[in-house]
Amino acid sequence: MLALADARARILSALRPTGAETVPLPEAWNRVLAADVVARLTQPPADVSAMDGYAVRSMDALAGGRLAVIGAAPAGHPFGGRVGAMEAVRFFTGALLPEGADAILLQEDAEPGDGAVTVKETVRAGRWIRRAGLDFVSGQVLIPAGRRLSARDIGLAAAANHPWLAVRRRPRVGILATGDEIALPGEPLPAGGIVSSNAHALAALVRAGGGEPVVLPIAQDDRSAIADAARAARGLDLMVTTGGASVGEHDLIQAALGPEGFELGFWKIAMRPGKPLIWGRLGETPLLGLPGNPVSALICGVQFLLPALAAMSGLPAGGPPTRIARAGADLAANDVRFDHLRSALTVAEDGALVATPAALQDSSMLATLARAEALVLRAPHAPALAAGSAVEVVVLAELGV
Amino acid sequence: MLALADARARILSALRPTGAETVPLPEAWNRVLAADVVARLTQPPADVSAMDGYAVRSMDALAGGRLAVIGAAPAGHPFGGRVGAMEAVRFFTGALLPEGADAILLQEDAEPGDGAVTVKETVRAGRWIRRAGLDFVSGQVLIPAGRRLSARDIGLAAAANHPWLAVRRRPRVGILATGDEIALPGEPLPAGGIVSSNAHALAALVRAGGGEPVVLPIAQDDRSAIADAARAARGLDLMVTTGGASVGEHDLIQAALGPEGFELGFWKIAMRPGKPLIWGRLGETPLLGLPGNPVSALICGVQFLLPALAAMSGLPAGGPPTRIARAGADLAANDVRFDHLRSALTVAEDGALVATPAALQDSSMLATLARAEALVLRAPHAPALAAGSAVEVVVLAELGV
Repeated sequence: MLALADARARILSALRPTGAETVPLPEAWNRVLAADVVARLTQPPADVSAMDGYAVRSMDALAGGRLAVIGAAPAGHPFGGRVGAMEAVRFFTGALLPEGADAILLQEDAEPGDGAVTVKETVRAGRWIRRAGLDFVSGQVLIPAGRRLSARDIGLAAAANHPWLAVRRRPRVGILATGDEIALPGEPLPAGGIVSSNAHALAALVRAGGGEPVVLPIAQDDRSAIADAARAARGLDLMVTTGGASVGEHDLIQAALGPEGFELGFWKIAMRPGKPLIWGRLGETPLLGLPGNPVSALICGVQFLLPALAAMSGLPAGGPPTRIARAGADLAANDVRFDHLRSALTVAEDGALVATPAALQDSSMLATLARAEALVLRAPHAPALAAGSAVEVVVLAELGV
Repeated sequence: MLALADARARILSALRPTGAETVPLPEAWNRVLAADVVARLTQPPADVSAMDGYAVRSMDALAGGRLAVIGAAPAGHPFGGRVGAMEAVRFFTGALLPEGADAILLQEDAEPGDGAVTVKETVRAGRWIRRAGLDFVSGQVLIPAGRRLSARDIGLAAAANHPWLAVRRRPRVGILATGDEIALPGEPLPAGGIVSSNAHALAALVRAGGGEPVVLPIAQDDRSAIADAARAARGLDLMVTTGGASVGEHDLIQAALGPEGFELGFWKIAMRPGKPLIWGRLGETPLLGLPGNPVSALICGVQFLLPALAAMSGLPAGGPPTRIARAGADLAANDVRFDHLRSALTVAEDGALVATPAALQDSSMLATLARAEALVLRAPHAPALAAGSAVEVVVLAELGV
């Protein structure tokens, strides 16, 4: 059996980031930046006021002094003149400092009246002035390529005068569910059949990982249906199949895809749930074959498909993000397989996370998985742990999964 | 000055959840469920095999015994007959148990040959059988209304045979930036002007909160332009303005909106950055007026707009989600205003988060905000803390902000 981390490393090493596309700024939120955002201007462009008040010469603005108000500079209407001896200009936050002035007299430290203003507190030179370039300077790299863009990044790119951004194209991921026994929700169900949940659960997982899912029609368990569907793989960045990964089924997939040019690898992975996995290449398109069991498919999705989406999006590739929690119950020693305990998550009084595994961990229980808030990760041969011990968890809601 | 939490409570108490809309299952991911998802079938529908092997009568399946193989049941092709004395049916995971059988002989405990199978390990009654309804039963509430739907929920709703789901309509949030001095990225910039970053940063924040942003054209600082834009508020769930919230500007907004039927509240909130806030109602539409300073606008967005989006989406309303971290540096005692320290986030060896505030916290520094990973929350009058003390943080990337 192959170790989980080794299987993931082999998958990730075979994937390349998608190309770049240009999108309007508002559509770049949550996309992965493909080229550095460089400031196209300096912000602030010159020295500006940090507060509302009066632009003054500090040498004149002594407590008790009286300055003539020679003008005003509301936002967007700079004062074009010069501040001379014993003069002041009514001033607002963000306005460009006029020639001559070297400080701001705060509104609350000034007593206006009769075209003049009386200074109540002596002003220090340079006070309440934001210097040119305090935020950023033209030519500075503001957002490095490879970052998933936050709302703050969108604001910063706007401030740096970018109406368009180059982002990685969303990876297009085909999803092919196979099996004679499955039907989509609301469609006639064959005798002994079950409603297919994998295709759309995995499509949602692909969306959560920033990809574009392409849900292919369900393929019956016969060679020509599978081969037909496989031809749909052309032009996709990744093909994901679900079902057809157990021993007997694997032979069918192998037989059906061989003539389509498929180089197939079949791995038994030391993990629970989700032992069998297919990994290969169909022409130019990498193929990831997940188990047909919905719980196994989703957990393999977290361990292999989300990282694959990150790699194809140009993000740092690795395992899913984890956090440290306290075990809410005693944990038995683990066997040879990497385990994922479906767990409830609570917050202790000191703010620590507490993860308590569900009593039943049967891999057919999709409702238990949906109710779970976290997966407690248990490495192969992990020793027994007492309640309260530190464990590594994947918080599912944070992944949108 | 009004306390931050009181201001938020007053905003939230004035908002109602949007109505429901029906969407196809794949579009329901990350939406908020408006009506319980009830199972439309029982899963598994009857007793099924949990493993690959042979369906047998346990009384016959003793080690060393030999059973006649009378048929096979691949997935989707149930065995219609009955398992009689000393008989077995080749069986696959998930297949419905045939009449007569009461246990599964595992594939690895069986030696097939010559139309029969030899039992290598005695089988116990009920072994390797999943009982009808182990996952869920028809009529059971599987996903309660009010939950943001994960990929697992989409899978579970599919398995329960739902092709459509009722979800809350995305709140439509108008965004109006005001000011003579601002222009959109790439457009001609007036003298002394700055590129508008607020509208699109807030639009991205609205998307991150599950809303649908409607970015209105920038309104100049005159009555008629603001009044025009205000008429656009009809049909929106919330109108957000940015700029026009400082003292002088507030008078203009008041004067411009008064004739449009605006009931305006103007609050000075004990927070930093982001003191002034407008809250009121324009006809039927609630209006939230944020500061024009981009850093203040985004932090007010986290404290007021994201919670407002949650309330309008039918989610539990309250402050942004927080986590406990260790202060990465000594923190000074706080004054009367609730503070938000822009901070870097690292992970200590023991897995704890460490939040280290940036040296400069000037509210004009958008680049510093964009680089920050967390906001350290400092309540009014919070005492000085030594590095290593526990602090409450908002992790910005987790919010998409």
